[in-house]
Parts: sequence; C-alpha cells; structure tokens
Amino acid sequence: MKSDLDSLMQARNLDALLVTGPGDHNPYMTYLIGNQAFLTRADVIKKAGEEPVLFHTGMERDEAAKTGLPTRNIEAYRLDELIRQAGGDPLKAQVLRYQAMFQDLGIRSGRVGIYGLLDAGVSYAFFTAFQQTLPEITLVGEVGDSVFLSAMATKDIAEVEHIRTIGKITTEVVGLTADFLSSQREKDGLLVKSDGAPLTIAEVKRRINLWLTERGAENPEGTIFAIGRDAAVPHSVGNPQDFLRLGQTIVFDIFPCEAGGGYFYDMTRTWCLGYAPDEAIKIYEDVLVVYNQICSELRPGAISRLYQERACELFKQRGHPTQKDDFQTQEGFNHGLGHGVGLQIHQRPFFSLFSDDSQRLDTGVVVTVEPGLYYPDRRVATRIEDTLWLRPDGVFEVLAPYPYDLVLPIRGS
Amino acid sequence: MKSDLDSLMQARNLDALLVTGPGDHNPYMTYLIGNQAFLTRADVIKKAGEEPVLFHTGMERDEAAKTGLPTRNIEAYRLDELIRQAGGDPLKAQVLRYQAMFQDLGIRSGRVGIYGLLDAGVSYAFFTAFQQTLPEITLVGEVGDSVFLSAMATKDIAEVEHIRTIGKITTEVVGLTADFLSSQREKDGLLVKSDGAPLTIAEVKRRINLWLTERGAENPEGTIFAIGRDAAVPHSVGNPQDFLRLGQTIVFDIFPCEAGGGYFYDMTRTWCLGYAPDEAIKIYEDVLVVYNQICSELRPGAISRLYQERACELFKQRGHPTQKDDFQTQEGFNHGLGHGVGLQIHQRPFFSLFSDDSQRLDTGVVVTVEPGLYYPDRRVATRIEDTLWLRPDGVFEVLAPYPYDLVLPIRGS
Repeated sequence: MKSDLDSLMQARNLDALLVTGPGDHNPYMTYLIGNQAFLTRADVIKKAGEEPVLFHTGMERDEAAKTGLPTRNIEAYRLDELIRQAGGDPLKAQVLRYQAMFQDLGIRSGRVGIYGLLDAGVSYAFFTAFQQTLPEITLVGEVGDSVFLSAMATKDIAEVEHIRTIGKITTEVVGLTADFLSSQREKDGLLVKSDGAPLTIAEVKRRINLWLTERGAENPEGTIFAIGRDAAVPHSVGNPQDFLRLGQTIVFDIFPCEAGGGYFYDMTRTWCLGYAPDEAIKIYEDVLVVYNQICSELRPGAISRLYQERACELFKQRGHPTQKDDFQTQEGFNHGLGHGVGLQIHQRPFFSLFSDDSQRLDTGVVVTVEPGLYYPDRRVATRIEDTLWLRPDGVFEVLAPYPYDLVLPIRGS
Repeated sequence: MKSDLDSLMQARNLDALLVTGPGDHNPYMTYLIGNQAFLTRADVIKKAGEEPVLFHTGMERDEAAKTGLPTRNIEAYRLDELIRQAGGDPLKAQVLRYQAMFQDLGIRSGRVGIYGLLDAGVSYAFFTAFQQTLPEITLVGEVGDSVFLSAMATKDIAEVEHIRTIGKITTEVVGLTADFLSSQREKDGLLVKSDGAPLTIAEVKRRINLWLTERGAENPEGTIFAIGRDAAVPHSVGNPQDFLRLGQTIVFDIFPCEAGGGYFYDMTRTWCLGYAPDEAIKIYEDVLVVYNQICSELRPGAISRLYQERACELFKQRGHPTQKDDFQTQEGFNHGLGHGVGLQIHQRPFFSLFSDDSQRLDTGVVVTVEPGLYYPDRRVATRIEDTLWLRPDGVFEVLAPYPYDLVLPIRGS
C-alpha cells in the first residue's frame, strides 16, 4: 500500500525516489500525484520519510497546485545558464539541473531509485551520463519487485473505491452491450439491424466506447470482442468487419480505466447469441467449474503461482491441454490465470508458471481470476474473468459482479 | 520521412534499431508496425537496409500478423531454459533472450540504437546489464535528434492524410461545441441550459469527448477548455465546476488522436460568449495579427527558433512582455510558438528560444503555429493555433481550416 512506501524504501536502502515523464498515463507518477492535474511533463522527488515534491513547468503551475503537493517551478533552474555551465552539452546541462533540484531538497549523495515512463534510449543515455557526472549519488534501476510495484500490489480503501467505481461502469457497459445485442434480429444465422444489414464488430465496439466515454471512462488498451476462430486466440481483439453469427462463442474482454489515466477494471464474459452448440456448452462449463473451484481455493498469503499450477491440473483432469505440459500450446488453457489490477492493467501479483514466491495474495491485493479454454481449429473458446479484492477480513470479493450466462437470447431465433 | 530511416541509420553509424515496450501508445513502435494490431508488449528489430521484424507473444500471434511484417514468437526462446542458463538471474535471462533474438537476425556485433516507452529504472538497469553481458554489441541511447525524431519530423503523404483526417474530426467537434454553446441561453451573465441551471465546463468536456469518440478519435492528453483567469495560464485545463460567464475569454485547445494511439491534430480557438470587452478584442487582435504575420513569413528550410524570436519581437512592438525579455514571465507571450505534430503531440521541430539550428522547416514538416497572450490578473487571454503542413510545392497549408471568430453569439444576450 501507499503507506508502505517509506518502509519499502528503507528495506531497499533507498534515500530518495525520482519519478519522471508525462504527468498522466504514467502509473508511478499518478500514484504519487493523483489523477486531477494535467501535466505534460513533470518530475517528482520523494525523500525517505518526506512528502513528494513536484517539479513542473511555469505554464503548468495551476495544474501542479491541484495535486496538493509542495511544488517547484523548474524554470527557476535556467536552462540557458546550465547549458553555459555544461560547456554547451545539453545532456550534461540536464544532469546539472537534476543536481540542483536534488540539492534544493538536501540530497547530495545516497541511493536514488529512478522510475517513470520514458524512451528507453533516452533513459539509458541520460542516467548513464548522470551517474558518471554525479558519482556521489548512486542511481538504482529496480527490476521486478520494485518499491512501487510492491506498494501498488496491495490497495488501500480509497484505491479500492476507485476500482469499484470503474468496475460498476464496466458492468453497466457490459449490460448495455448484452441488451443491445439481444434487441437485434436474426436473419440467415447472422445478427441484423432494423435495416436488415448485418451488425459488425466495429459497430458494437463503437457503442462500447461511447457508453464508456459517457460514464467518464476511457479505453486506452482497447476491447477484445472476438468471435469464432478469433475468440480462440486469447489476445486477438476481433476483426472489425466480422458479422455476428448465432451459436458461435464470443469472448468479450473489457478493461477500461478512469479518464486521464486512472484505475483499471478488467472482466471477461463469453456469450453465444441465440443458442449454444453442445461443444461450446461443454467448454464453457469446464471453464466455469475451474473458475469457481479456483475462487473457492483462494487463500490470504498464498503464492499466486500455485493457482496457475492448480488451474492447469484442473483443466488437465477434464482432458484439456495446458501450459504445464507444453508451454507453447495453442489449444486448451494457454495463458496466465490472472494478474494484479490497479493503475496498470497488468501488475503484481502475476499468476504464472514463472512467478517467483514473492508474488502472493497479500491482504489488499486486487487481482483477476480468468481461466479460459481455446480451440482455434474448432472455432470455439471461453474465458471467464472477474476482478477480486482481498479484503482485510480475509474474504475475496468480486468488486463488480455480473451474471455468467452463456446464451444471449435473440428475437426470432 | 520513414523512407529516410536507413540513411539516417547510416549517418549515425547504426547497424540496427531495437524498439521495445507496449504495442500501442508507443510512438516509435506505431511508426514501424502501424496502428492496426493490438499488442500488449512487443519488440521490433530493424537491421540496416532490411524490413523490421516483430517479436510477439504466442497469444498475440494473430494481432502480430495484422502488421504485415515478418514475425517471430518470443516463446520460442524458452524463459525457463534461459533462467537456468543465467544461473537463476532473471535479468540476465532476459539479456540472453535478446542475444538469441539478435543472433537469429544475424546480429552478433555492431551499434544498436534502443528506443520505446519503458520504465526509466528498468531501462537503465536492463540495458546496463545488457551492455556488460554482451560487450561486442554497442548500445546507443540517442538523445535529441535521434533517427526516429529526425525521420518523424517530416511526413509522407500517407501520414499527412492521417493527420488531415483527425484534423477534420477535430474541426467538426469544435464546430459542434460552438453550436452547442450558441444554442444555450443567457441568465444573470451566465450560460444556462433549458432547465435554467448554469452549464459547467465539465458538461462541455463530456460532450467533446463523446463527439470525438463517435468519430473514432481518442483524447489521451485531455482538452483545455478554460475561462477567465484559468484561460490566462497557458496549460491550465480549466476547472470542471466553472460556469461559463459571458464576455470572458475562453481558450479551447483540443488535440485528439486516432483511436488506439495514432496521429494527432492540434488546434486552439479563443471565444467570448455573447460579446467581447474592448480589452479582450485588443488582445485577440494582437494575437491574430501575429498569427497571420508569422504564417506569411514561414519559409521552407528556415530555422524554427528564428520564428520564436520573431514572434517575441512582434508582440513586444505591440507593448506586450515576452519570454525574450524575461523567460519566466507569467504575462504576455510566454510559451513556444509551435511544435511538430505526428504520432506524438509534441515533436520536432520545436519553436523555442532554446531550439538548436538543426530544427528547421523541412519539406514535409507538420507543425503548429500558436501565438498567445496571457494576463491572469486581468482574467483575459487569447491563443490561436492551427496545424500546418509544408507541402512539396513549398506552400504551408492549414490541414483543417476553421473560422477565427472571437464572439460566439448567444440567444437573449
């Protein structure tokens, strides 16, 4: 949780954190400054035990003030003078600017963790130059279980309410989508609109985006709404020109966030329009059984990897290929069982055969559970996914419940 | 232009480019693979003189195929075996995976430029480890005028058509916003809806987002719709709860992109509802005169910085403070005159007092021209902005023209 940041810094022997990059759609930045201010570019420096300080441009001073954090105008560090001091080298001038910023916060040495979305080459060149120019500061690039990823893996109540709110919007939009599909007619095995023309996936997605936008959500990662063979390739988003054929499985995976780059929600339902063939029902039921079984076995403190193993075992018992026997299988259960959800759509803890033992279901985690089965050659697939919060009382709660029905009834079919 | 990538690589003595990170909202990635595929995470390697090769996860194989590029499934490089080879070190295992990917393309040594949006600390740690483990490859982090920024600064015809299309959507939405405001009524100096309640900025922005979404655009960077004092702070986005008072300047700066993270358009209009006070008219006219004067002076091949100097000179002649006399001024003309627009909302060439001479108006640039004046204490401001393309015939063309009127007529006022 955010309140753990200082103890996590101490455990890693970090004296300060630097978060840089854009002011939005930059999760660690948003974690420290919130989602209310519009900042093209910002730097946040947090000293151990102190509140973060936000460095902003002059013309974004009012936006910076919205964060409620102490702020500094970076134009106080005059770039023209710094370039002179650096003998005309703009990269070194930027290093000197950071040196001055750190010094103004009383940081002249120690270990500083660096974070934030930037171009990879710029980061590599800039921080290499920084380290060579200022050897008294030790830059730390954390990989894996960083201060931020560790803190963000568990959510406080305020964060859970954000996720619950976007979850409620998500289920409303899933409901509107179901109602919209059910209100169309069948003709020659396809869903057709009132003008008799077949409905396309592009038209469904356009409505989904509108309903999300109306409710203050955005959809930066897109939506998976895929039918037939496409649905049976887990991350195929669906072909916009495809028609909606009755009796084929549709995988509808929706993962919007609060507008401006806030908290995400993630859920998947699998639908058959009008009716479901026996094969679809069988696969659907196997996934639902595994979903329910896994949910019933979730325990506070457990290692997430073990549920990935368990899901493989359960699917294997039902006769399906899994990652455990062939990691590259394109049939059966062939992806992670779940992942943390927060300011990033995918974050710790991950449910993967490769996750290490530090990825656990600690109190406050918000995770997806999303078993699935995929048979591209048979054009049939199912995935069922909800986002669950491990509450302080030890209960795993689905934050935005929605019915699991496979068949959406269609008029005239 | 994209067709210059190989000659730009040669000029920098680069044997290959590596672009890594998410598959969308990652401009250099989109530049190479387009905006049609949904890829959570990808690597693209381009050897000098060859087509880029896309490395993807197994479950995103169909999405990867949509790019039309040669593709490789990264799961062919088995992470469990690589971790064993790396003695259990996951960072080193990732380095070995990249080594294998490079080797499969025949790259065992040489200079490799690295690019793409990643966490700064991960980039620093990973590429430092990469460089130590594989010294026969020299990693190059380009800062400033990189291969990509240089290529992207000028657009080919296909790119211009993308920008023109999103520009047309932008002007449609600006027109709808004007019509919507004009169709409201005045009461006690405020714009009120049919129910008599004052309209808020939040309600206007919600409509703007809906109109954009309906047209296949997204708005990842938000919209500036600010009135009164807020309008006079260049990057204040406006207070959602603010009412719309007649006779105050509204700065409306809108910069959407194609859904999924494509090309941007950028424009600004300044409006007064119902009427404009003399002070607003004076400032507005000064900005319009400077806008027209600068546009008339734009010349192919010219250094962009000189127009920033020129705009300062023109505003000073009209009695306004400028950056040139006091870089930190909060009054008068206090920001860049313009910037390139493409897959990034701000890219080269920049019009700034600090831009170096390599930032020029080469044939194919798409740039904003956006002079402005700001007087926060007097609660009055104007910015006028269009996006212009320098055509092969030497003409600077506004890609999506829209009228410049200051006053929006309101019923009953």
